[in-house]
Amino acid sequence: MNTKRDNANLLAHVAIVLMEPKYPENIGAAARAAMNMGFSRLIVVRHEPPDREKMLKMATHNATHLIDAMELHTDLAEALASFSYIIGTTARKGRSRRNVSHPRDMVEKIVPLLPNNHIALLFGPEHRGLTNEDLNFCDLTTTIPTADFSSLNLAQAVAIHCYELYSGVVHMADEKKRFVPKLADSYELEGMYSHVEVVLRQIGFLKQADYEYWMRSIRRFLGRYHIRSKEVKAIRGVCRQFLWHENQQQETTGSKETK
Amino acid sequence: MNTKRDNANLLAHVAIVLMEPKYPENIGAAARAAMNMGFSRLIVVRHEPPDREKMLKMATHNATHLIDAMELHTDLAEALASFSYIIGTTARKGRSRRNVSHPRDMVEKIVPLLPNNHIALLFGPEHRGLTNEDLNFCDLTTTIPTADFSSLNLAQAVAIHCYELYSGVVHMADEKKRFVPKLADSYELEGMYSHVEVVLRQIGFLKQADYEYWMRSIRRFLGRYHIRSKEVKAIRGVCRQFLWHENQQQETTGSKETK
Repeated sequence: MNTKRDNANLLAHVAIVLMEPKYPENIGAAARAAMNMGFSRLIVVRHEPPDREKMLKMATHNATHLIDAMELHTDLAEALASFSYIIGTTARKGRSRRNVSHPRDMVEKIVPLLPNNHIALLFGPEHRGLTNEDLNFCDLTTTIPTADFSSLNLAQAVAIHCYELYSGVVHMADEKKRFVPKLADSYELEGMYSHVEVVLRQIGFLKQADYEYWMRSIRRFLGRYHIRSKEVKAIRGVCRQFLWHENQQQETTGSKETK
Repeated sequence: MNTKRDNANLLAHVAIVLMEPKYPENIGAAARAAMNMGFSRLIVVRHEPPDREKMLKMATHNATHLIDAMELHTDLAEALASFSYIIGTTARKGRSRRNVSHPRDMVEKIVPLLPNNHIALLFGPEHRGLTNEDLNFCDLTTTIPTADFSSLNLAQAVAIHCYELYSGVVHMADEKKRFVPKLADSYELEGMYSHVEVVLRQIGFLKQADYEYWMRSIRRFLGRYHIRSKEVKAIRGVCRQFLWHENQQQETTGSKETK
């Protein structure tokens, strides 16, 4: 129950911003999609107020409150002024459109920012998308992958982004509830590598010549798996036991020699 | 280039099936979404042929060919007859709606089936969704997660499913190009566990009492990380070297004893 409220608080930090949408029906359909995924803030940048009836027809009665609360601006800079992170969505991959993200990668980047930031998801007009000037406001640009060069319906693009973001927030909340093991820190790992090295030298596994190569391989092996604190202790336990055993044997040998 | 054609071949195995859609505009918008994501087969189950002009308005000229090639049936069983795997989409979670998947999990299940199967993605009518009777045809049911109980626009639901499926197919093609390490098989792992056990017994790490507990921990540790063939060989190399070293020491002791 609490998680649901936490999610709602996070989603309230996101606004859907539509830059000069031509068709009021698309604003309504976008409002419905936003509402479905738990977003409630809708901002429209447009010189003329859009036709209310046409918006409501596509918003359905479930999203009427989003249309009622819709913020209308005539200037994009003004509409975006209060946001600390802005995501621009684009279908075109022009010269200045190099660093575009898949919506899923965008979600990974912004979900951690949500608690402390207000974030705008900016969509361009149906017929031409966002201009380079519009994109100058953006910290990140996303493109929904399509099979060929083809532009998505505006409200469908809003729906896909909202769906990804909502899924990302829910996923993060689920992750938090999961058991997270305490991974070994660098200090623990370094101690373990030294300990392992002493043992390997003792048994003559590491020849001076390939010593560096092997220690690098061992670091890569043990490092790749994000091993846990507990496991570092167990590995060092084995090393300690080996060295004790080795010592015992040498003492035996020593005592036998003095016989 | 080849990958693109391979993807197109796979996507041709999928049909979007709309059960009794009320609004021809939604059929058109669904056709456009399907086309955006590389799908070209659209099937409508409906007693009256839908109004062509209303469909085309939302399909836009890019997806006109999907509307032209649209298959019209009056009976769902007949429409689905040639498909070997059918996915039903639903917003409702009734008593018989227990095993519903997130669209992303559905994609994981069906992408491997694509090369050898024809797959239908079935969507219900706008006002009531699929009935239990309709769902009897389905091998799998998906629900797009929403913030509250709220039903998505039909074409948006189609867009989200097509987007997930297209992303899944592209992702699979990318994965195929990636380096896949050869993981150790069970035979290699068992050989390694035995070898490690011999060493641990030799140094007296495993007391008889906690022997089982420790070997289980070690199996869990080494098993969890999906270690590679190459790494099994390296670990066994260390074991072999230890046992050789141990043997040498005992020989030294032995030879000293005979002095």
